[in-house]
Formats: sequence, C-alpha cells, structure tokens
Amino acid sequence: MKKVAIIMGSDSDLPVVQKAADQLRELQIPFEMHIYSAHRTPDEARDFARAARDNGFGVMIAAAGMAAHLAGALAANTTLPVIGIPCASGGLGGMDALLSTVQMPSGIPVATVAVGGAKNAALLAAQILALSEPELADKLDQKRKADADAVREKDARLGEMQS
Amino acid sequence: MKKVAIIMGSDSDLPVVQKAADQLRELQIPFEMHIYSAHRTPDEARDFARAARDNGFGVMIAAAGMAAHLAGALAANTTLPVIGIPCASGGLGGMDALLSTVQMPSGIPVATVAVGGAKNAALLAAQILALSEPELADKLDQKRKADADAVREKDARLGEMQS
Amino acid sequence: MKKVAIIMGSDSDLPVVQKAADQLRELQIPFEMHIYSAHRTPDEARDFARAARDNGFGVMIAAAGMAAHLAGALAANTTLPVIGIPCASGGLGGMDALLSTVQMPSGIPVATVAVGGAKNAALLAAQILALSEPELADKLDQKRKADADAVREKDARLGEMQS
Amino acid sequence: MKKVAIIMGSDSDLPVVQKAADQLRELQIPFEMHIYSAHRTPDEARDFARAARDNGFGVMIAAAGMAAHLAGALAANTTLPVIGIPCASGGLGGMDALLSTVQMPSGIPVATVAVGGAKNAALLAAQILALSEPELADKLDQKRKADADAVREKDARLGEMQS
Amino acid sequence: MKKVAIIMGSDSDLPVVQKAADQLRELQIPFEMHIYSAHRTPDEARDFARAARDNGFGVMIAAAGMAAHLAGALAANTTLPVIGIPCASGGLGGMDALLSTVQMPSGIPVATVAVGGAKNAALLAAQILALSEPELADKLDQKRKADADAVREKDARLGEMQS
Amino acid sequence: MKKVAIIMGSDSDLPVVQKAADQLRELQIPFEMHIYSAHRTPDEARDFARAARDNGFGVMIAAAGMAAHLAGALAANTTLPVIGIPCASGGLGGMDALLSTVQMPSGIPVATVAVGGAKNAALLAAQILALSEPELADKLDQKRKADADAVREKDARLGEMQS
Amino acid sequence: MKKVAIIMGSDSDLPVVQKAADQLRELQIPFEMHIYSAHRTPDEARDFARAARDNGFGVMIAAAGMAAHLAGALAANTTLPVIGIPCASGGLGGMDALLSTVQMPSGIPVATVAVGGAKNAALLAAQILALSEPELADKLDQKRKADADAVREKDARLGEMQS
Amino acid sequence: MKKVAIIMGSDSDLPVVQKAADQLRELQIPFEMHIYSAHRTPDEARDFARAARDNGFGVMIAAAGMAAHLAGALAANTTLPVIGIPCASGGLGGMDALLSTVQMPSGIPVATVAVGGAKNAALLAAQILALSEPELADKLDQKRKADADAVREKDARLGEMQS
Repeated sequence: MKKVAIIMGSDSDLPVVQKAADQLRELQIPFEMHIYSAHRTPDEARDFARAARDNGFGVMIAAAGMAAHLAGALAANTTLPVIGIPCASGGLGGMDALLSTVQMPSGIPVATVAVGGAKNAALLAAQILALSEPELADKLDQKRKADADAVREKDARLGEMQS
Repeated sequence: MKKVAIIMGSDSDLPVVQKAADQLRELQIPFEMHIYSAHRTPDEARDFARAARDNGFGVMIAAAGMAAHLAGALAANTTLPVIGIPCASGGLGGMDALLSTVQMPSGIPVATVAVGGAKNAALLAAQILALSEPELADKLDQKRKADADAVREKDARLGEMQS
Repeated sequence: MKKVAIIMGSDSDLPVVQKAADQLRELQIPFEMHIYSAHRTPDEARDFARAARDNGFGVMIAAAGMAAHLAGALAANTTLPVIGIPCASGGLGGMDALLSTVQMPSGIPVATVAVGGAKNAALLAAQILALSEPELADKLDQKRKADADAVREKDARLGEMQS
Repeated sequence: MKKVAIIMGSDSDLPVVQKAADQLRELQIPFEMHIYSAHRTPDEARDFARAARDNGFGVMIAAAGMAAHLAGALAANTTLPVIGIPCASGGLGGMDALLSTVQMPSGIPVATVAVGGAKNAALLAAQILALSEPELADKLDQKRKADADAVREKDARLGEMQS
Repeated sequence: MKKVAIIMGSDSDLPVVQKAADQLRELQIPFEMHIYSAHRTPDEARDFARAARDNGFGVMIAAAGMAAHLAGALAANTTLPVIGIPCASGGLGGMDALLSTVQMPSGIPVATVAVGGAKNAALLAAQILALSEPELADKLDQKRKADADAVREKDARLGEMQS
Repeated sequence: MKKVAIIMGSDSDLPVVQKAADQLRELQIPFEMHIYSAHRTPDEARDFARAARDNGFGVMIAAAGMAAHLAGALAANTTLPVIGIPCASGGLGGMDALLSTVQMPSGIPVATVAVGGAKNAALLAAQILALSEPELADKLDQKRKADADAVREKDARLGEMQS
Repeated sequence: MKKVAIIMGSDSDLPVVQKAADQLRELQIPFEMHIYSAHRTPDEARDFARAARDNGFGVMIAAAGMAAHLAGALAANTTLPVIGIPCASGGLGGMDALLSTVQMPSGIPVATVAVGGAKNAALLAAQILALSEPELADKLDQKRKADADAVREKDARLGEMQS
Repeated sequence: MKKVAIIMGSDSDLPVVQKAADQLRELQIPFEMHIYSAHRTPDEARDFARAARDNGFGVMIAAAGMAAHLAGALAANTTLPVIGIPCASGGLGGMDALLSTVQMPSGIPVATVAVGGAKNAALLAAQILALSEPELADKLDQKRKADADAVREKDARLGEMQS
C-alpha cells in the first residue's frame, strides 16, 4: 500500500496531528510524520514533496496554523493529493488558517478539512488510497457501520433513560 | 479508468460546475453530471452515492451554495472521496457555503476547495485517480509544467515591456 | 396534544438540548429525544422525519454543531415545522453552525434560533402547538407575565439598593 | 384558516417580502401585509402584535434590515410564532440583520430564516398552520413532490445534453 | 443637572454596567439604574423612555447583549440622546450585540460605544451634559489631564527601568 | 445655538457627509464642514478639535473610511461629544471603519452610528444640542411624528392595494 | 540606490500593482516587476528571493490574492524586508488574502499593508530605502507636505462653497 | 546603528511588547521603549514621532489594541518606517486591532504584522536596519539558519520516535 505523509509546520501542531496518526494506525495504513515548515525549512518541504511519489507516498496531509501555507507549499511541488488541516491558534479561532489553506488559486488544489479536523484528514487519505485497496475500502465501510452502530446504541440508551 | 461524478444542488450552479467538466474533459477523464439536491431530492442523492462505487465512480464532486449540505449528504452515504465546492450566492460571499461544506464532523470528511473553485475540484479528482493511472499522473505533471511555462512567459513579456 | 421531537446530532449536544427538554416538561408538552446523525445515521434521521407526522409529532427540534446539517436533513424529509439550534463548538463560536442551519435554500425552511438557544427552541415549538391548544397558549401567556414579573422584581430590588 | 401577517419595517423591504406574499397566495393562505417600523411606529407594531391572535392571525412574518429589531419587537408582544426574515442592505451582506434577528434572548424566540429568505418564511408559516389544516398539509406535500420532480426533470435534461 | 438613566436588559449585565455607574458617581452626576428588557418588559422600557425628558433625564445609557435591541427600543420612544453598550456573551464575542446596537435605521440614532465600553458610555453622557454644565466640562478636562499624567508617569517609570 | 462641526477625512467622503449637512440645514442648526485628515493633516485636526469649544461648537461629527481614526483623533483633543460615521470603502463593507471607530479605549469615547449613517449622526447631534434648546427638542419630536406619519401613510396605501 | 522588486502572483494583479510602480517611478526609485507564483513557479520565486540582496535589491513587494502565500514564500527565502499587498478577489472582499499575508508565524515577518494598498506598499519601500538615502527622505517629506497641502486646499475650497 | 523605538499604547501591552524587546536585545540592536497613547497623550506621540529621525531612530514599532490608532498616529508624523502590532483584547480576537492598524489610507503606510506578532515586528525592524548594517544582515541570516536547524532537529527527533 502507498504510504501517507503527515507533515506539520511546527511541533506545536503535534497534539492535533496525533489524531490523524492514531486513525491511520487503526486502519493499518503505513505513514511517516515530519516537521517541515513552509517558512523555516522551505527546501525540506519542497524536496520531500517532489520526491514523495517516488518514495512510495500516495497522499500528503499538512497541518498548520495562522497564515497556514504548508499545505499549499507542498501541493505546489507535487501532483499527489494534498490534504490540509487548518489549526486554530490565537484569537481568530482558526479562521486565518482555514482561509489560508482552502482559498488556493486555480491549478494547485488543497483538499481542506475542518479546523482541527485531523481524524477526518486521515479518513480522507484512507478513502483515497482505498480506491485501489479493496480491503481498505471494506475496512472503511465497516468503520462507517460501527460508527453508525455507536450512534444507534447511544440513541437506544437515551430512549431507555426516557422511558 | 474510474469515473468522476459531478453533482450540483441546483441548475443555478451549472456555470460554476462547467469549469470542472471542462477540466476533466481536457484530461480525458470520464465523468457524469447530475443535479441532485440534498434537500429537494435527498433520495436520489443518497441512492446515487450508495451505488457510486459499484457503478464505476472513483470520486464525487459536489457543488452547492448557502447552507451547502450536498457534499456532506453524499459523503454520508459513500466511502468514496467527496470533493466539495462552496458556491457564493447572496451577500455573504460564500462564507456560508464554505463553512457548511468544510466544517464536517469527525467520521465523514469532505475534501473542500476554494469558494467557486471548480477547476481545482476537477484537478483534485484527477490527482486522486492518478494514483493508479500513471498516464494521468504524467498528464498532470505536464499540465503543471505548462502552467509554470505560461507564468514564465508572462513574466518574460512583462520584462520586455519594462526594458 | 401533538408531540415534539428533540433530535441531536451527537450525544455531546445533550447538555445544550437538555434545556429544551426541561422547558417542554415544565409546559407539560409530550416529547421524545433521539440521537440521529445527519451523517452517521442518515437513514434513521430520514425515516424518523418521514414518519413523524403519522407518529403523532407536530414539531421537530434539531440541535447540531459545526457544518450543522441535521435540521436541514430532517426538514428535507417532512413538511412538519423543523426548528434548528446551532451549537457552538471549536474556535468559530458557532458561526459555522448558525450559517449551516439558517441559510437553507428555497423550498425547505428551517426555523433557526440563537446559537445554543435550546430554551427558545422549546418555547417556539410550544407557540406552534399552542395554535390549536388554547390551554397551552394560556400557559405561554402566563409564563410571559411571570418572566416580566421576574424582571420587574429585579428592577425593584435594584431600586432599593440605590436608594 | 388562521391568517398570516406579513410585516415589513420599511417599504424598501417590499421587493423581498413580495415573494412571501406570492407563496402564500399560491397556497391560498389568507394574509395581510403591513408596514410597521419597530423604531418609527413602535406602537402600531406593538398593538398589532398584541391583538393578532384575537384578530384571527396564526403566524407573523417580519422582514427588516440592518439592526433588524422588528421580528423581536413583535415577538415581545405576542406568543404567536414570529418568523424573521433578515434583509441584506449596505456592505455587510445582511450579517447585521441576521444576527439582530436570530440572536434573541431566552424567553422570546424568533424563527429565523435565511437572509432574504421570504419564500421559506411563507412556507414555514404554511407548515405551522398545516398542523391543524390537513388540506394544507397535503398541498405542502404535493409542492414538495413537484419541487422534487422539477429537479428530476432538470437532471434528466442535463443527462440528455451529456449523451 | 439633568440625570442619566442607566438601563440594562438583564441583571446579568450588571457587572458591565457597574463601571458606568462608578464613573458617573466619580463625576458627581446624578443617575438612576433600571432593569428593563426590550423583550420581556417592553412597556416599562417604552414608558420610561417616553417620560424620561419630563422626569429630568438628559441622557440614557442602555446595555444589552446578543440581539441587543434595548438601546434602539428606548431610542424609538424618546428624542433624548441614547448611548448603547453592546455586551459580549456567547461565542460571537459581542459582534452580534455590536451590530444589533449600531446599525440603526435612518431616523433613530443610537450613540454606540465599544463592546463592554461602559466607562466610555458614562464619559460620553458626561460630555453631553457638560455642554450646559461648565463645571462638569472642567472636571472632564481635568480628568483628561489626569489620565494623560498617569500615562506620562508610567512612561517615566518604564524609562527608569530601562536606564 | 452651539454649532456642529462636520469633519471628513477625505473629500471622497463628501457624498456620505452631505446627508448630515442636509439634515442639519433642515433643522436650522448652524454647522461648518471641514476636510481634516487624521493622517495627512493631523495638526489641523488637532487644532480644530482643541479650539472647538471656544469657537462655539457643541458637537463634532467625523466621517472616515478604512482604518477610520478621524473620530478618535478629534475625540483625543476635545471633551466635546464626537460622533463617528464609519464609511464603507473596498471589499470589507465598512467593517474595518466600524471597528476602527467604535472600539475606542477607555477614557476617549466616540459616539458611533451605523456604517454610512450620516443622517443619524446629524440627528444625534441635534438631540444632544436639544438638551438646552427646547425649540429644537420640539422640532425633533415633530420630525419623529412626521416620520411615523409617513410610515402610517405607506401602510395605509399598502392596505388599499391589498383590498 | 538599492532596487525594489515588485512581484505579483498572477498577471491579473497587474492593475493593482501598477499603482506601486507609478509611485516608485515618481520617486525615481529603481525597480523591477516580475510575475512569480508561489504555487505555479515556486522555484523562480525562491531563486529570485535568495539572490535578491546580491542582485542589488533592498526591498521586495509581493501582491497576491485568495490564499495569498507569495509574500510569505519570498520572505522565507530572504532576510530583506518583504512587503505584502493582499489583493481582493471573489466574495470575501480580500479578507482571505489579508489573513494569509499578515498572520505569519514567528521568525518570518511580512510587512502587510491594506487590501489593495499598492501605493502605500511603494511608499513603505521608499521609507525603508530612505534610511540611507537622505535625498529620498527629503522627497518623502516633501510629498507629505504636498499631500497635506492638497487636503488643505480642498478644505479651503469647501469653505468657500459654504460661505 | 540607528535605534528602534518600541511604543505601546498602554502598559497593559507590555507583556506582548516584551518579546520585541527581547528579540532586539538578542540582536544587539539599540532600542527605547515608551508608553505613548494616541488618545490620552497624543502630543507626546506626535512629538516623539516628529523628532525620531533626528534623535537617531531608524524604525518605530507600535503596539495597540481595540481601535488601534497608535501606529497610524505615529506614521502620520514621520516618514520613518512604522511597524504596527495589533494586540488582541476582548471578544473580537484582535480583528478590531488588525483592521484598525492595517487598513491605512493612501499616503501613510503602516507595516503590519500578525496579531500579537511582537517578535516578528522586531525582526522586521532588524531587516530594515540591516540594509545598511552588513553585520546585522549576517546575524539575521545566521538566525534563519539556526531556526531552520531547530526545526530539522525536531523533525529528526520525531523520526527517531517513530522508528
């Protein structure tokens, strides 16, 4: 299976990103985590993105806050799908990171998930890889069913509490 | 090659969505366009999403405005990757559609592109399909180079104008 | 009397929704609470909404956060009045949930109350049911008077403190 | 059948409000339109709201822009359901009217629809009245089906264009 | 000297409003505080506003949160100057109260100060009354000088710390 | 009667400000208009503000756009009441001017009206001057009545159109 | 004198950027204009930034819209001062470009001017260069005086119109 | 070397501003800190700005919150580069200070950094001074390398944790 790269702009994003790693691990998807800053180590970010396809990666996940350029900087250097996680920091609640991540110019898409949506970033990566991994597709379907069952169970318990 | 589905919530979104269709056509990616409303024809939207994988689709693109639920409603019924295009309408400049599309709850990701970013939605779909279509990956790389050349040419022309 | 359905998208919305339940109980309006997710258990949400009128419901209240599709997803499957409570979560202060709930497209209205406005959702449901329940209308008028008296009393106490 | 009152804060809101009137007329729901300003004719607004139930009204629709107090001012003087239509005007795109209408304090709900959502306001009023008017409920169900058919037809035509 | 009325929409606004009272007391300006809700006790608010000029008031200060209609509701019933203090509550940081207070329609002005700006509301009231109270004008000038001296002293202390 | 000063930051604000001048003229309130820029002619702005009370002014109205500092710059140099009109310009719809005008720090209030609310600025100035000008107070009351009558007349005409 | 580089992300930004060029020309500051896209020609952007100091540049001005990464991408590759001009495009009024430009992480500053503020970007560049160019400093002071005189003249003309 | 002036509008901004002072000290750039309020001590602010160039200053840094006029007020009185730090305070997360600082009118630029971006303000000042201080330019380049090395080291440590 192709690998997922989880790139964060700063080690302060690690707590957010950890949820992506946990989800990938649960789905047994191979992944690597790196700290590459679009602004402090732009060459590392670029070189990683350029070599990613050849190095066996299929999807890249990028998490950054404020003027969150990381996902775009990676996307500019690869045609692999890049998923952006806007991270909230400071008083603007992540609105700065969201707009900096999603409002990409024509030609260089970034697949943006919710502010702090690391788990969904991992699931989206899995859905992408699952297109050529039928077993993974099955796992995702089963997880959906399990998620639905969990909601159903909570609803049932709520029903008991009311009766 | 797997097909792309382009779903719009209303025929008023057709001018936006057309740019996605044009881009897919240029890349010779097979696609189907549909009008399914998350609110007016929810069953059609659901049935299409549920059968999409079996019907040969690999990615779904959903375009909608205002309280843009379409991408999420499709994503809730498939584990195929779903790309959301928030469409601007009214005075809020698309902020309503952007937040309604991107702020998905944990478990059901939507790969959101910029407000009105139909071309990027198509490119993102192509990047996803290209993971198992080396020829398409080549085309995307070539397109990137052509885009870069176009910028370089414009820069050169600007240089001439200044000298 | 027709029943009120209180639907929440996740059990994390229970603390908000509880205030709606308390208010309905105080007014002796029969109600049922459920956890149906627009995205994780969309069929349950749909089936409940479709059968709601026949099952004796008169109004539905839906509480959800982020890209809050639940009220709209219910409204798409019933012509009963649906009241939406946007729930705040994360850094955007509920603005995402508010726009996702209120900016519904033409044809499928959602009666939206304030961010976190669960008590008002219950009162609005009561006002709707009271159209054919004169006793309930009386109760609502008395509650208004009591609320006004409470303000008057506070004003009187404040006056004493100043003199 | 109980009547609907459509109140606008200024005759400049008439073009927006007209869509509500058209929808009610189509559904053969009796209605009255008035211009009462929460700030310029507050007594008329109050007196109308106080007498509305006795005068045969079942629902009130209020349309106003900017610091849109009208819906709240009516709601403060009746326990009939009050539906608020925020009207866009000036550079803020209706965000001022939306927040002024929806963020009502506990005790006095306003059922808010989308910015400029006059048609949905009328439909919501109809849904409320339909609770005790089975024929109207039927009409609303038929309208839903007709709306869905219209979408289906557009989708079919789009399909023909593609083949 | 004419009196200032400080009206709050709810006793929960008392901590904010207290700073206005303290400032007026310091300037020896007579004032009265009341709790009148635009929505729960609209008649009290109206009657107070209508009688305010005859009752010896010169300025009214109104503090309210969320869809903050109080200042506007008072202003609609008097031609005395009305000062509005938007109060922050909930996740929107007071933006709802600010827009609901300041975006008044033509004909009914509200003199709006900053979110939570109770002290400035009191000073503005004092500045208004000082137009016909030369002694108060002197006090305000002296306060300005004292405020400036306090800043100068802090700057001097900071200078000492640096040398 | 004390005079009103209308200060604008740029002659591009003249169309907005003209409505304030018209309103003052209608009320026969003496006024002077000036163009003083907080940034381009700060000394003129300061000198005018400092001398304003001695020069017979009672209120100052300041209109400016973008980072609208003018009202605050005047207020910093006088204890006369200063009314701020935020002017919309560019894509932010006046939100920049509104926040720059209203969010004044403690000690220096600016009485802010709606974005572009020049007429209300003039009325607020009139209300302030009317505290010691009973005739002006009468005029304002009559204007209120006339405004109310105008609304009533429009409502009556609307009623005729419906019958 | 050191040169100024004006970089735009796309030739669609040329009309905005032209005002910066005009201002530099008026001040006789040597400059070069280029089109380098942070996303389409990232290497050109990087290489230019890295060589800029050695190539005789003293300041860089970068203009871009949407998720405006250009100024940050240049700043990441030089320690020359980089000035960012956020360009408005689409429905968000430039708020996306503003936040993407100004909210830079610690270590890599971008000197951001107003949305569309190309003339100010040129003046800021001039002010920076003027630190070691006394003649340019004189020119800037004279321009300030001329700007002030222009305001004074407009004020005088306004005064004549009133008398 | 020319000095940097760090001006804050209030001593409550000292904790933010301290990071700028620390950074300048680390780079051995001479600086002075002052508390000058655009509104409470406008003359001090003006006089300091006017004399700054003659007093050996090369750059001014201004930190202020809310309707943050300080940077603009200084910039209006000097043609030295002025850097603005918007400070967050209250519920609006610094959006008020950001817009009040960055949206300067044509003619008077303010080089704005991120909300609370004091360290970047100091670095920007250093970059400006470094244009004629080759040693400082070297220091800044070395600091960049050290920052990059720190990220590389963190990435390496993360790599070890994963293996």
